Amino acid sequence: MKQKIVIIGGGAAGPKITAKLLRTKDFDCSIDLYTQENIISYSACGLPYYIEGLISNSEKLIVRRPEQFEQQGANIHLNKKCIKIMPDAHKILVRDTVTDEIQEVEYDKLAITTGARPIIPSIKNIGLKNIFTIRTIQDGVNIRQKMLNSKNAVILGGGYIGIELLEAFHANKVHTVMIEREPHILSLFDPEISDMIKEQILSMANRNNENNVEIITSDAVVAFEGSENVEKVITQSGRIIETDMVIIAAGIRPNTEIAADAGIELGVSNAIRVNNRMQTSKKDIYAAGDCTENFHLVSRNYVWIPLGSTANKQGRCAAINISGKYDAFAGILGSAVTKFDKLAISLTGLTETEAKNFGFDVITSTMTKKDKAGYMPNADDITLKLVVDRRLKKILGAQAFGGGDADKRINTVASAILAEQTLDEFLHLDMTYAPPFSTALDPLLSTALVINNQIYK
Amino acid sequence: MKQKIVIIGGGAAGPKITAKLLRTKDFDCSIDLYTQENIISYSACGLPYYIEGLISNSEKLIVRRPEQFEQQGANIHLNKKCIKIMPDAHKILVRDTVTDEIQEVEYDKLAITTGARPIIPSIKNIGLKNIFTIRTIQDGVNIRQKMLNSKNAVILGGGYIGIELLEAFHANKVHTVMIEREPHILSLFDPEISDMIKEQILSMANRNNENNVEIITSDAVVAFEGSENVEKVITQSGRIIETDMVIIAAGIRPNTEIAADAGIELGVSNAIRVNNRMQTSKKDIYAAGDCTENFHLVSRNYVWIPLGSTANKQGRCAAINISGKYDAFAGILGSAVTKFDKLAISLTGLTETEAKNFGFDVITSTMTKKDKAGYMPNADDITLKLVVDRRLKKILGAQAFGGGDADKRINTVASAILAEQTLDEFLHLDMTYAPPFSTALDPLLSTALVINNQIYK
Repeated sequence: MKQKIVIIGGGAAGPKITAKLLRTKDFDCSIDLYTQENIISYSACGLPYYIEGLISNSEKLIVRRPEQFEQQGANIHLNKKCIKIMPDAHKILVRDTVTDEIQEVEYDKLAITTGARPIIPSIKNIGLKNIFTIRTIQDGVNIRQKMLNSKNAVILGGGYIGIELLEAFHANKVHTVMIEREPHILSLFDPEISDMIKEQILSMANRNNENNVEIITSDAVVAFEGSENVEKVITQSGRIIETDMVIIAAGIRPNTEIAADAGIELGVSNAIRVNNRMQTSKKDIYAAGDCTENFHLVSRNYVWIPLGSTANKQGRCAAINISGKYDAFAGILGSAVTKFDKLAISLTGLTETEAKNFGFDVITSTMTKKDKAGYMPNADDITLKLVVDRRLKKILGAQAFGGGDADKRINTVASAILAEQTLDEFLHLDMTYAPPFSTALDPLLSTALVINNQIYK
Repeated sequence: MKQKIVIIGGGAAGPKITAKLLRTKDFDCSIDLYTQENIISYSACGLPYYIEGLISNSEKLIVRRPEQFEQQGANIHLNKKCIKIMPDAHKILVRDTVTDEIQEVEYDKLAITTGARPIIPSIKNIGLKNIFTIRTIQDGVNIRQKMLNSKNAVILGGGYIGIELLEAFHANKVHTVMIEREPHILSLFDPEISDMIKEQILSMANRNNENNVEIITSDAVVAFEGSENVEKVITQSGRIIETDMVIIAAGIRPNTEIAADAGIELGVSNAIRVNNRMQTSKKDIYAAGDCTENFHLVSRNYVWIPLGSTANKQGRCAAINISGKYDAFAGILGSAVTKFDKLAISLTGLTETEAKNFGFDVITSTMTKKDKAGYMPNADDITLKLVVDRRLKKILGAQAFGGGDADKRINTVASAILAEQTLDEFLHLDMTYAPPFSTALDPLLSTALVINNQIYK
């Protein structure tokens, strides 16, 4: 019997479910995807690089076009916002964002992939022109357009997107001030690591004494000023910063209001709770991507760490289970990477702060080493911090920053954490070595050895 | 009671043992290192990059100088070749390579770190000038000097060092012919992967139609010709190649004759057998580095895969055990990396060929994907091959080549192999993602998914 599969949301997870279902043999279904936007399946993570100018055309960020899906047999409904889910009736209500017409849609199985949206802080005069948030391709196009005619910019928020926009603006010779209300940027990292990263960014950005970058922490924006366009940013501490534009990158929140209204259980940060088959608390309703919470494999707690990599895997898992087969998404390690210029910044698992909060007996080591043989002309510094439980001897997390491939070393640790390796086991890791790639004893193993020496002193 | 520690060999493992012992507290010892060379502790792996011209001065390849060790209290004896080990008497005989004087040296504990040496094939007229092997810094200096005045070169052997020399010569606009007697270069890789790598090297090297590179396989050199200097290379198939110089990089063998003469047990390829504390079959005699055989953690067989990374770890392990503490070196995965120009070439664990020979129920997947988001300007192809046992579901090995960080993805697999992860577990790996670093689903996970789909179809 042909099943009606309905998907709400066209970001990353929804199109992934669609694509996977289209490739699934022996499953007879119709696929209808509804999105309030006028495109689907674009790489939001690529927007900072479009703004920077590294990607010539914003169209390149589109992973799959509606026409491609339609040709393969899926129905893509653009400009259709889901306004109500009725789990018992197995129906949803959809409103056309152009005509305001409301339509009832039946489903056998529903997938909620409504993603997340930027948090807009309550700041005086936030309605002024040239104050942007960043989520859609159109946001990216608008920001780039304005940036090309700007001398000064302010970024609110020192998270991943803030850092990536800082790179983009700096590369385009716009003097940029980043304002983070917390004491440290990149609050997912341990404070001393964040501070080291901040120093590196500032020294890289300001070495030529032009289009300098400024990073303000522990200060919040209280007001914008200007007649029509934003002209000034006023902070709590009384600073007045003249600017041509403002980007608000102060975090995101999950789009889960319609799920909550339908009685679907939410979890941490109001993200949708799902089991490891991506099933919500309501029969025949699945969820995937940024709108869902995650099980953290190290802390064994539920967290909300929305990432494109997770959305992709969850979408695949949801599709397999929707089609009646079995797949499980075990959880996450929170592995992530960002960069400023040549400085890669990456982490996985728990930070020292988190590990202590979760009650682990924490021992750490932080080392700065050359990422390649010191005599190679392009050898660069890499700083690694490992977090280990002294009794369990388990590796709990790692943070890294440096030239080149800090992220790939983080993935190596992620693999060890996933396998619940002890430090002793990890030290037996046979890592590749050649002078252009590493040192005879990889910096990762050097850092691990320091902890080992402390434990077995 | 002060212990007399004697070390034979000054390559990588010997100096590592020395350095570690010097850092060890609460161990009262004298350290005497004997080497037949006139320097110690240099990076042989860096020689190709010195020859290429990436390292301005050959001195930079010296990791630690004798004077540094001497200042710290170790005695470094240059130009002293060990000619006999007397295990029962706890003595060795050492001959001064300059004066030919022979000296008896007592030890409480002895470490053999005699390394390996190039294999010199029996080829007619091999005594002609400008035929080189590569092992010492002086070899590197001689090769570079000759290369700078050469138009044509021949490299015998298509292994790691051959490939690295090919890069060096090509970068210096020397027309180079590589001759490998086996049907494939890089014989540690599966044949079809070797062939793909060969094609890539040739297309990268020959795209400008100048100083072309040629790779000949399944052909052996039978004679050199020339009056004083080598002028021609004659192969079995009858090819006559005019050349200004020849490098013999046709493999190495362990320097274990004195160990064998002393009744110390040898293993695979005549390398010294050691237990996981680096102890040989004779009391108080340890061995480490290229002269020892290795336990392969996947095949559970003894192999001889001499690598700088292994030598380093074994040296550390030997030093700890010599000092009376405990450390174990579990074995190796054979992880290695080399490169030609921008093409990184890396592997870990078992190849398909090896896995089949060892009796595994092999299933594999090979994929070529973009290493970064396709819209990033520097996105490059990466080819990955995964080898899995269908029943155990264990990952057995991986091979990779491509732009940038193929090796770091291999390290991530190595971590999973070390942990004996199943494919299902590995697929839960939370890898970092951002457009400049990877794709939302990393190529490694894509490749693993293909095998998963085959198993659970």
